Amino acid sequence: MQPEGHHLIGRTITQGSGAPITALNPATGESLTPTWSASTLNDVDTACRLAEEACDAYRETSLEDRARFLETVAEEIDALGDALTERAVAESGLPEARIQGERGRTCNQLRLFARVVRDGNWLDARIDPAQPERAPMPRPDLRQRSIALGPVAVFGASNFPLAFSVAGGDTASALAAGCPVVVKAHNAHPGTCELIGRAIAAAVNRCNLPEGVFSLLYDADTEVGQALVSHPAIKAAGFTGSRKGGLALWNLAHTRAEPIPFYAEMSSINPVFVLPEALEARTKALAEGFVGSLNMGAGQFCTSPGLLIAREGPALNRFIEHAAQALKEQPAHTMLTPGIHKSYEQGAAALAGHPNVREIAHGETTSAPNACRPRLFITRAEAVLNDRALQEEVFGASSLIVECASQEEMRALARALEGQLTATLQMEEADHDDAAKLLPTLERRAGRVMANGWPTGVEVCDAMVHGGPFPSTSDSRTTSVGTKAIERFLRPVCYQDIPDALLPTALREGNPLSLTRLVDGQRAQ
Amino acid sequence: MQPEGHHLIGRTITQGSGAPITALNPATGESLTPTWSASTLNDVDTACRLAEEACDAYRETSLEDRARFLETVAEEIDALGDALTERAVAESGLPEARIQGERGRTCNQLRLFARVVRDGNWLDARIDPAQPERAPMPRPDLRQRSIALGPVAVFGASNFPLAFSVAGGDTASALAAGCPVVVKAHNAHPGTCELIGRAIAAAVNRCNLPEGVFSLLYDADTEVGQALVSHPAIKAAGFTGSRKGGLALWNLAHTRAEPIPFYAEMSSINPVFVLPEALEARTKALAEGFVGSLNMGAGQFCTSPGLLIAREGPALNRFIEHAAQALKEQPAHTMLTPGIHKSYEQGAAALAGHPNVREIAHGETTSAPNACRPRLFITRAEAVLNDRALQEEVFGASSLIVECASQEEMRALARALEGQLTATLQMEEADHDDAAKLLPTLERRAGRVMANGWPTGVEVCDAMVHGGPFPSTSDSRTTSVGTKAIERFLRPVCYQDIPDALLPTALREGNPLSLTRLVDGQRAQ
Repeated sequence: MQPEGHHLIGRTITQGSGAPITALNPATGESLTPTWSASTLNDVDTACRLAEEACDAYRETSLEDRARFLETVAEEIDALGDALTERAVAESGLPEARIQGERGRTCNQLRLFARVVRDGNWLDARIDPAQPERAPMPRPDLRQRSIALGPVAVFGASNFPLAFSVAGGDTASALAAGCPVVVKAHNAHPGTCELIGRAIAAAVNRCNLPEGVFSLLYDADTEVGQALVSHPAIKAAGFTGSRKGGLALWNLAHTRAEPIPFYAEMSSINPVFVLPEALEARTKALAEGFVGSLNMGAGQFCTSPGLLIAREGPALNRFIEHAAQALKEQPAHTMLTPGIHKSYEQGAAALAGHPNVREIAHGETTSAPNACRPRLFITRAEAVLNDRALQEEVFGASSLIVECASQEEMRALARALEGQLTATLQMEEADHDDAAKLLPTLERRAGRVMANGWPTGVEVCDAMVHGGPFPSTSDSRTTSVGTKAIERFLRPVCYQDIPDALLPTALREGNPLSLTRLVDGQRAQ
Repeated sequence: MQPEGHHLIGRTITQGSGAPITALNPATGESLTPTWSASTLNDVDTACRLAEEACDAYRETSLEDRARFLETVAEEIDALGDALTERAVAESGLPEARIQGERGRTCNQLRLFARVVRDGNWLDARIDPAQPERAPMPRPDLRQRSIALGPVAVFGASNFPLAFSVAGGDTASALAAGCPVVVKAHNAHPGTCELIGRAIAAAVNRCNLPEGVFSLLYDADTEVGQALVSHPAIKAAGFTGSRKGGLALWNLAHTRAEPIPFYAEMSSINPVFVLPEALEARTKALAEGFVGSLNMGAGQFCTSPGLLIAREGPALNRFIEHAAQALKEQPAHTMLTPGIHKSYEQGAAALAGHPNVREIAHGETTSAPNACRPRLFITRAEAVLNDRALQEEVFGASSLIVECASQEEMRALARALEGQLTATLQMEEADHDDAAKLLPTLERRAGRVMANGWPTGVEVCDAMVHGGPFPSTSDSRTTSVGTKAIERFLRPVCYQDIPDALLPTALREGNPLSLTRLVDGQRAQ
């Protein structure tokens, strides 16, 4: 199957009639065929109405049927074969092995959510039985479960054309929660979007679900996205991208007549704190690990280590030498889009021109289009403490080493950090006291705190948190990766004295779904 | 103990220096002593800084210590004796029995949250153990728990001077989650606030907690409240009150440099759908129950039945006659404040003057100050469908009966409703088919769906939801009553490869807290 320039509005697979959209191979600069036409505002309205029409039926599908649907989406993505990989490689400039891995992750993520749907703990079923004899007032029968918020809008990321895009984490968790999904395709990979969209639409069809469960729209600029977030039928939205884009849509979501939750995953510089004993004991290995992490995928990860904090002294000087040496040997990877490449060049140039920042090293220069030359900078802690601009994310393979005069200053820097997706400690056992003093601050500042690794690499599992305080995301109470993400798209409803025959199955007498339920304050099955 | 006109900033019990604040007995119109002075912006800053300083220590108190603290608050409130009841009666105009009941509920609520804290399920502990042999990439050790968001601002309600005020649901759930709390006292009951505040401060002291765990500020107008929501140390806020006040603060919470969750419980008209067989079978009992519910506490409940929807015809005509008769015999209860009384008069007058609304009956007239004469109006479904103004809450003992031409029109009306705290069905078994058609709509529109009762009366338990879609609250994903409220003030954090000695106790090997944890996808203890 090849993309045909179509958008998908329920089961209607057709061409849009708005402005043209064409994909580019960032590695060659060449245009790819076909051309899409942007969806119209009428298309947005149709997709959202279909989603609303599908909502009551879809959110009451049985756990087994919904889980099978998610698995069917994964099967249909598998069935796309090499055409998907080839298209995603051409549109993203990412290596084939990376796209293969991301494809596996995308399908595993759907299958993981199928497991979550089946076990039903997300329903958070609670029962407080009636106490008709209680004085002075009898207690009614009260039962609670979580239900789907309603149709969800998804805005995928450029940097994960599969795992954070049309069938990515937001779509998987929203569908798992029982929410129909309307996706706005990312213009950096419109063909990949269409192929994946067709796989989801095929699964909707195979599973006999209402067509409005899934639609895929295209936008030439921002009009379709804005209309989508503003549509009354949409009850929540997920976004992964820039702070500017995220905040603009977040603002719309909060100023519409009925404000809705808007989950934006935006920007993070992922500080790495190298504690003294670790710096001394593993100087070279740390320097090389750091450089490998910062240049991986041209640094185009939300969790790329953009800040490395260490104590000044001979060990740090040796670290810097090793890092500089390692960086000089690093290739320049192709960036995802000319726009991202341009932003990277501007951001890195701003750092280079900052009066308190010095460039330590840069990677190989190349004339290939959209190539990201990795760059490493250094500054002092007081400069970061005095200038918020030094905490701005430079999306790409750039990082800033921060020299601290003391462990006290390192802790002051931790306290001054904005919200982050991750915070990393490099430490030896002799550093544990220092680490213990930093940890309370780091867990207030970040969604994931890690030791002796690099932040790039986000496992999809129950315990993952890919989230964090503002501005890393718009809502620190949730995660966009891992099974807890299903909670984003749910709200609790209480049923008081509703006759058993009218209760949702999850709450009926006899526990027909064999759920673990909280009954009179005790977990019961 | 009597109130002394003090605010409480940590352990500093002192007079403010702002504009004067005096309480009023709404039943007599007389001023009460003493006089408070509003807190200053400097006081706000001090209270918030103390809260931030207390945060790391307080959020890491053991489950047992934190539960004991909540129980100690309840003990200290019990120890306030009759002085508290007398003051609350004088300030609210509510009957003594009601205040006694509310006082018991407030203490029970604190004790219920102590149970919740002890069982530790709110930590949502998850462990995905390392898989060092996994190919192509080993899996790190990943663990997750929920932590306190940080200091919380609480704005209590006028209509529950105990259960929704200084030591009410928001304070109890925030303290349970490990968040220090800064309360803005309600000016309708400043003395009650001070007494309760002293009880909490005494408990902080007895439990050797850092003083910043609790502060109580006073505001003459809106300056202190606005500064509180805007303070960088405050990481979430709870509010119960009017839509206007709630939205103004909600807006501030979302436009500050770091936006924060703002949980506003605002307005709801709590539709009651009387289905045909129930209307026929229980005409008189329903009419009397309805009138009793609407005039209870002068209708000053968030869940007062402001809309009753039924099919036109002889049964409804009989219902209306009975309701009118019952209403005429209803006394006029004192309202909480002159401001609320004035708003009620205006709102009821607007309904009375609406071209499509007719008054059916009103209660006894009295010359007592701030007395709420109950009023009952009628209109047709098409009028409500065509005019959003007829969905506006009139806070007080007023309700609007809506005549529908058909069950189809009743369902159309349900779909046109704004978000509600509750939706009620009055039904017999023969109404079940009708009810089943309404339920999917009602659970999308309301936080609590009930049968054959009246919405006034909110049980504090695990299964309660006192929340609902906008505009009944600002965030339908939560509840302000019941144990699930603890989740409002938590966020998940992931710990990757953190050495056991540095892990939070909840996540350590050997499960020292004996929690139920999700380990490798399975519940384990």
